[in-house]
Amino acid sequence: MSASTARSVRFYATGDASVLKLEQHPLPAPGEGEVCIAVEAIGLNRAEIMFRQGQYLESPSFPSKLGYEAAGVIEALGAGVTTLKVGDRVSTIPAFSMGKYGVYGERVIVPARAVSVYPERLSPTQGAAIWMQYLTAYGGLVEVGGLSAGMSVMITAASSSVGLAAIQVAKMREAVVITTTRGSAKRQFLLDAGADHVVVTGEEDLQERVMDITAGQGVNLVFDPVAGPLLETLAAAAAHRAQLIEYGALSTQPTPYPLFSALAKGLTLRGYTLFELTQHDERLAAAKEFVHAGLAAGRLEPLIDRTFGFEEIVEAHRYMESNQQKGKIVVTVP
Amino acid sequence: MSASTARSVRFYATGDASVLKLEQHPLPAPGEGEVCIAVEAIGLNRAEIMFRQGQYLESPSFPSKLGYEAAGVIEALGAGVTTLKVGDRVSTIPAFSMGKYGVYGERVIVPARAVSVYPERLSPTQGAAIWMQYLTAYGGLVEVGGLSAGMSVMITAASSSVGLAAIQVAKMREAVVITTTRGSAKRQFLLDAGADHVVVTGEEDLQERVMDITAGQGVNLVFDPVAGPLLETLAAAAAHRAQLIEYGALSTQPTPYPLFSALAKGLTLRGYTLFELTQHDERLAAAKEFVHAGLAAGRLEPLIDRTFGFEEIVEAHRYMESNQQKGKIVVTVP
Repeated sequence: MSASTARSVRFYATGDASVLKLEQHPLPAPGEGEVCIAVEAIGLNRAEIMFRQGQYLESPSFPSKLGYEAAGVIEALGAGVTTLKVGDRVSTIPAFSMGKYGVYGERVIVPARAVSVYPERLSPTQGAAIWMQYLTAYGGLVEVGGLSAGMSVMITAASSSVGLAAIQVAKMREAVVITTTRGSAKRQFLLDAGADHVVVTGEEDLQERVMDITAGQGVNLVFDPVAGPLLETLAAAAAHRAQLIEYGALSTQPTPYPLFSALAKGLTLRGYTLFELTQHDERLAAAKEFVHAGLAAGRLEPLIDRTFGFEEIVEAHRYMESNQQKGKIVVTVP
Repeated sequence: MSASTARSVRFYATGDASVLKLEQHPLPAPGEGEVCIAVEAIGLNRAEIMFRQGQYLESPSFPSKLGYEAAGVIEALGAGVTTLKVGDRVSTIPAFSMGKYGVYGERVIVPARAVSVYPERLSPTQGAAIWMQYLTAYGGLVEVGGLSAGMSVMITAASSSVGLAAIQVAKMREAVVITTTRGSAKRQFLLDAGADHVVVTGEEDLQERVMDITAGQGVNLVFDPVAGPLLETLAAAAAHRAQLIEYGALSTQPTPYPLFSALAKGLTLRGYTLFELTQHDERLAAAKEFVHAGLAAGRLEPLIDRTFGFEEIVEAHRYMESNQQKGKIVVTVP
């Protein structure tokens, strides 16, 4: 491979996973404030599937790049970059436009501000599974949600990478962690991952279980990427003055606003994405400090479900859409 | 009329205004911590219509009393009441169960905690138009909403008693006040009432007008008792990180949760009723202080739309349901 070209994934129309094309492209030099990373691993996110489908907060312009998370080694620095050096083992923070900087590639250029060195003890595969999940969980639970010791928190879609990160972050905050899972297959996995309670929603009444666990008070904080009709149930299981943090739109059904519960209990529903955090230097710095401390102490530990080869990017997307995974799906780059 | 009996309004089944019956009842002495008020005026609220219809936060047990707001003179004190005296001109604060203490009556017994002396300069009719509207507006806008100078606030259903109170409270906080009204008939009235801007939703595009007024930023705070499909529009007109305070359910249509706007802009939707304030002594004391200061300074001024006689209680309810009023509807008691 020539130093001035590299393979990367692009797509020319929205659609299913088959629209993703692995192509050779010329690679420009990093511009001012940018760095070039030789990629070793790419972490997959729901955001990329929604972006590929044209259903994300940002819309693609074709041909479009995609991808938020990569780990690798810094290969070149643009002008004005002083906080990093060539050879640093780094991973990317989703603090950029996916269409502009998408990191599904062998060599990628990203803003230096969106790059962080990751701990020696983590593999590149784990390095690609840090920032989306821990920043989303930290920002939602700690910064916005104010989660503290003794509070109870309900984490839905708990086997996803963000869900598992949320369990770890919540345990760092000494909260009581209640997770949900559809069938009993992932029950033991979630207990092993740190959940204090697992509600199997296909077999148990969510509200009843939560009231049992919380001595009739309801749960103080909800961290949910599903929305849809589930939101009414979550509101019914919430305590007076609880906060429900909605950070995704996984449900394909409409989401009724739980007006009666909201009025009766003074509920707060908060829409949240990590971008409100990554857009602000101070908030991002505080979040990075929390995550680095958690990783150093081993309280935060990226859990990898499965890896795919770079040529298997289409299969990797399909696998994520199958909802079987327990943790992060990572694509390794040769 | 004997001192031991008095007429009051009761109802024996949920339904339209015709279920309300004016009847003579024996009057017990006030119990410990209670006072008896000789009522001069009763302020009407949406809450009573919803309670009468069986659609309120509290459900009636039959025969049921109703009513939150009355102004009158203290006639008797129960044991342990030291903060009030016979002869005090007082009005009631909605800090009790309507079914238990409902104040649609000639003589009513209420908890002393839910009674406050009102300024000499106000008539009893105005005295019955203080606490529901100003506590709701203060609690929502100031305590929960954090409204401060320079912020913009959108007040829907602005011609209602709470809507007008919210305009006055928002102007005390030096906010930019945007109100909505369906037709142009109430436009000048709302400007006279203190609104900086009036959006006639039947003739103008709400989002477009709000973006014009706020230089494209959107509105910082929304104070809305309507919900229903309007909520999507309000969310679209909201600024990044805006808070939408939902304090009622006037719409008869379902309320979709504005998920996309909430995610994209980090919106907070907060269900709110004044009861979260009236249940806490400290919060209630702070709110009373704000309202008393505003009334004393003439910055808060209860606006009365129309009065009815006590025998016209059914007509008074029907009039409220017709949505013609601009301000408080009060029933005077002979």
